[in-house]
Amino acid sequence: MHHKPIQHCRQCGSTVAYRIPDDGDTRQRAICTSCHTIHYENPLNVVGTLPFWGKEGEQVLLCKRNIQPRKGFWTLPAGFMELGESTSQGAMRENDEESGADIQLQAKLLSTVFNPGHETMEARLFTESEIPWDELAFQTVKLTLKQYFSDRLRNQYGIHTIDVA
Amino acid sequence: MHHKPIQHCRQCGSTVAYRIPDDGDTRQRAICTSCHTIHYENPLNVVGTLPFWGKEGEQVLLCKRNIQPRKGFWTLPAGFMELGESTSQGAMRENDEESGADIQLQAKLLSTVFNPGHETMEARLFTESEIPWDELAFQTVKLTLKQYFSDRLRNQYGIHTIDVA
Repeated sequence: MHHKPIQHCRQCGSTVAYRIPDDGDTRQRAICTSCHTIHYENPLNVVGTLPFWGKEGEQVLLCKRNIQPRKGFWTLPAGFMELGESTSQGAMRENDEESGADIQLQAKLLSTVFNPGHETMEARLFTESEIPWDELAFQTVKLTLKQYFSDRLRNQYGIHTIDVA
Repeated sequence: MHHKPIQHCRQCGSTVAYRIPDDGDTRQRAICTSCHTIHYENPLNVVGTLPFWGKEGEQVLLCKRNIQPRKGFWTLPAGFMELGESTSQGAMRENDEESGADIQLQAKLLSTVFNPGHETMEARLFTESEIPWDELAFQTVKLTLKQYFSDRLRNQYGIHTIDVA
């Protein structure tokens, strides 16, 4: 979605060339050959939720993707953060769009009636043993679920960082 | 730096028009009038450090900016996260570029010899009472420093989120 090299300047439409700018930068950037605008490319944020159910959070909500990439595979409700929203707002919006589930952050489900949008084929609850590990859409979803059930065992939920590069 | 509306397609150079795509999206995007590529615009990540010194962390390192915006104002070493790096790697890179200070994460200084790059006029240590509150470059720098000294008083450092929109 965001990985093709830039060919043209978004301001004037002329062709760009990748080179290191003269301003002390150390990376190659797409620079307009006509108006000299520098086009930066940076990582994007994916925000989402891990909605759980049951008095000990023994079930989690997954959504079967109805769009590419990974159509037909299971995922947590998540997507690209948009301009002008906080991470919480983005997580709530993606949760609503992809699962239609009624939650409060930290993503505890308030109901088992879901109402997913067009990006999702099916949204349903899974216990740990029911999770379709081989049909998960993304590696990050697998790692997040593993961490959730590990945290849950210790009854201690925390901030975790993983390197997915 | 990243806020001008898109005028031309980065793939083919034709003009774009802002409209809601036909794929179920709810936001206006810049869509190429010729090749129909959709150009998404999303928030960027700023990563950085708050280097401290002294056995109780009573001094923090600030850098006087040598580039626009806010040239001549004081800031924490920070900048835009780059493709292919983790948040920690980005924070360490920005720390090195803007302060040249020797740190270990969580940003404890290992030496008081700094070696800033061209983006910084001067890098020096400040106690809380010495901080030039009216000459800080950005509101986020002020809030981060306030939080640091508040956390330090309680000797309890944590994860904090603020909405800067």
